[in-house]
Amino acid sequence: MEELNSEILLELLDAREFKKLKEKLENMHPVDIVEVMEEVGERQRVLMFRLLAKEEAAEVFTDMNSDMREDLINALTDSELEEVMEEMYVDDTVDVVEEMPANVVDRLLKATDEETRKKINALLQYPEDSAGSIMNIEYISLRKEMTVEEAILKIRQVGINKETIYTCYVTEKKKLIGSVDVKDLLTVGESRLIEEIMDENVLCARTLDDQEKVAAMIEKYSLVAIPIIDHENCLVGIVTVDDAMTVLQDEATEDISIMAGVTPNEDSYFGTSVFQHAKNRALWLMLLMLSATVSGEILAHYESAMAVMPILITFIPMLMGTSGNCGSQSSTMVIRGIAVGEIEFKEFFKVVFKEIRIAILVGLMLAVVNGIRVYIMYDQDIMLAIAIGITMIAIVCMAKCIGCTLPLFAKKIGLDPALMAAPLISTIMDTCTILMYFAIITAFFKL
Amino acid sequence: MEELNSEILLELLDAREFKKLKEKLENMHPVDIVEVMEEVGERQRVLMFRLLAKEEAAEVFTDMNSDMREDLINALTDSELEEVMEEMYVDDTVDVVEEMPANVVDRLLKATDEETRKKINALLQYPEDSAGSIMNIEYISLRKEMTVEEAILKIRQVGINKETIYTCYVTEKKKLIGSVDVKDLLTVGESRLIEEIMDENVLCARTLDDQEKVAAMIEKYSLVAIPIIDHENCLVGIVTVDDAMTVLQDEATEDISIMAGVTPNEDSYFGTSVFQHAKNRALWLMLLMLSATVSGEILAHYESAMAVMPILITFIPMLMGTSGNCGSQSSTMVIRGIAVGEIEFKEFFKVVFKEIRIAILVGLMLAVVNGIRVYIMYDQDIMLAIAIGITMIAIVCMAKCIGCTLPLFAKKIGLDPALMAAPLISTIMDTCTILMYFAIITAFFKL
Repeated sequence: MEELNSEILLELLDAREFKKLKEKLENMHPVDIVEVMEEVGERQRVLMFRLLAKEEAAEVFTDMNSDMREDLINALTDSELEEVMEEMYVDDTVDVVEEMPANVVDRLLKATDEETRKKINALLQYPEDSAGSIMNIEYISLRKEMTVEEAILKIRQVGINKETIYTCYVTEKKKLIGSVDVKDLLTVGESRLIEEIMDENVLCARTLDDQEKVAAMIEKYSLVAIPIIDHENCLVGIVTVDDAMTVLQDEATEDISIMAGVTPNEDSYFGTSVFQHAKNRALWLMLLMLSATVSGEILAHYESAMAVMPILITFIPMLMGTSGNCGSQSSTMVIRGIAVGEIEFKEFFKVVFKEIRIAILVGLMLAVVNGIRVYIMYDQDIMLAIAIGITMIAIVCMAKCIGCTLPLFAKKIGLDPALMAAPLISTIMDTCTILMYFAIITAFFKL
Repeated sequence: MEELNSEILLELLDAREFKKLKEKLENMHPVDIVEVMEEVGERQRVLMFRLLAKEEAAEVFTDMNSDMREDLINALTDSELEEVMEEMYVDDTVDVVEEMPANVVDRLLKATDEETRKKINALLQYPEDSAGSIMNIEYISLRKEMTVEEAILKIRQVGINKETIYTCYVTEKKKLIGSVDVKDLLTVGESRLIEEIMDENVLCARTLDDQEKVAAMIEKYSLVAIPIIDHENCLVGIVTVDDAMTVLQDEATEDISIMAGVTPNEDSYFGTSVFQHAKNRALWLMLLMLSATVSGEILAHYESAMAVMPILITFIPMLMGTSGNCGSQSSTMVIRGIAVGEIEFKEFFKVVFKEIRIAILVGLMLAVVNGIRVYIMYDQDIMLAIAIGITMIAIVCMAKCIGCTLPLFAKKIGLDPALMAAPLISTIMDTCTILMYFAIITAFFKL
């Protein structure tokens, strides 16, 4: 594979050395061509696209982002567009169609033949994030009466257009009854019947299943593809491992965004406008800012205690910070545990029990270290060291409990557990910490 | 595929209905069998394991966690262990060997034949997290002079033992010179030469490449497997998509842990002991707790200003919370952008410029909303509303700048960008916020 060297390509383009450029492009992976195209102007991009071989052009077209694609569609002639559409897989076409504005969709659909148009419309019916919306409708189906030789012959005839042919599915009246790996076809005798060698225990998913669930199945069972059946148990498509990988990565990105208090959107960081970024972030900030005023009011309430013992204010940032961090640690561990399917609501008490034990250990450690610091720094005030130590253990326990339970409750009532991450937890913990701190301190020093 | 129903299996086990149990197990996926085994006692587990067919036993053995595996090894006889080891893929055996204590490793190695032992030892040399350590050494290699017919014949002969045969690699004196998809073998004429149909632009990675980089390549180019070459460009193995998926998921989990201030470890949530959990969390908490005392000291320094205007303390939790959240949002977006390969250090100024514009928008919104609240709640004190508003805009801008630059710098100097997430950012922002707040307020009200 040629090293990606966009400069050389751009030089060739500027020098109008189209023949050499064409050769270079032929040896490049479509994904890399898209990367180069991202760096050049629109006019150059169209020029470059026109140099690509038909099949490669379709792949490049599939891989580019929606803005680039829209510009390109506007620049291409109808017949050029038709050529690209002909080479594209139906599921990729659907992905493209879903993102385009109505006028572009019209042009795209006009550029596809009648039969494909029907398939596109059928796929467009599936809800976003469903298995149906990401499935591939090109796969090989075999009949159980076929011999291995006939099956191989069928693959030879039709396989060249299929994105994945390594697992073939055996159907009877469109219903899925088994699967055969190409590996098996190649390694058993040619006269054997499909029926004899097929695996009847086929893992499958349904068109309306959540895409994340389907991707997780592919990962769990190390599959290359999973067949998708409709409500009548008829085989309608497959989801392949590369799509599953993208789904899992996108879901992780989405979770990470939500956990940082950012409304996720599907575009990339640079692909999202400043205004959209601000919108995605402002809502949470606003909500948390207003909630945080509660902590402020409570703090103001204890003004008199702080007037008597001004040193009390010194410990507030540390206590608030520690409780927020403790709570976020627990909630993050649980959120991720839920996301990867390790933790379920039924393990509620198991989780809480574990977190409490962790909290006691961690709380003790922090209390001792901090106690020594307080004792040394504040005139060997042993009472103060003890009071802050007790507060520390109490807030760590509280933070870990709240941190681990909120995501589980969120899951239970159908909310995204990732909402219960650092930003919300630390805002809640700020309020709880101040209340707990002054409750302990005022009792301890009889303020 | 049979529904996973552990109760039925356990009933059969208790009733000693081994024949029925065996039938049930035969229809289950190894991954599901492991799930059931996790729920039963050790004695029952060994009993169940002995009922499995040889091949299935090896897969179950590969899928279970290391504690279960160690118990099982201790319970099996030498000849039973030998049977299991015979069926296992070498790379899986290596994974098992790496996790076991020395005495168990001795038994395992004794149960493998001389040739496999050599292969295991070779694989054990690769550093942890390298492509070499996760690669599979079972693949099909072809020679360029072969015809398609000969190639298919070779696959027929040796393919049955290979985990992945869908991409065959063409080698010449062990050097990788091309690849052929099984798809292509099946769809071209049988008399064609491999040389004519092979793809010479093979993407490959090196044994010492980071496993994460290799997994990202597999995802980027939607590959089923990627060939791995050594320092002499000789083909030594392949990394398959299912391993890549696991690597990417594990990396996401690791990043999420670090971003929550938890030292990641490879075991699952429940698989990690309370003591280990406490250890993983205490270090960061300790560090952050001690850093947070700086904020406390600064706060104490402004005691006199707060004595004059006691209301000032009310805004501290809100300002600290908001700046922490703003900073975390930016750092999280950048950390994830770096992880998925979208953001690089060379885009430093592009990122900062974007974040500053976002910060101004967000800061203005927050300042206005909060200004109105302050104006209404605190006796229509317009000066106070303005002062807090200015502080708000200033800290949001500061938070976003610090939040987006720290991960990029971390990356530049070879640290994990995920370290620069919420816990650290909010601790830094606490100090910065208090300094900024009192600088503005004391200037504004001439305190």
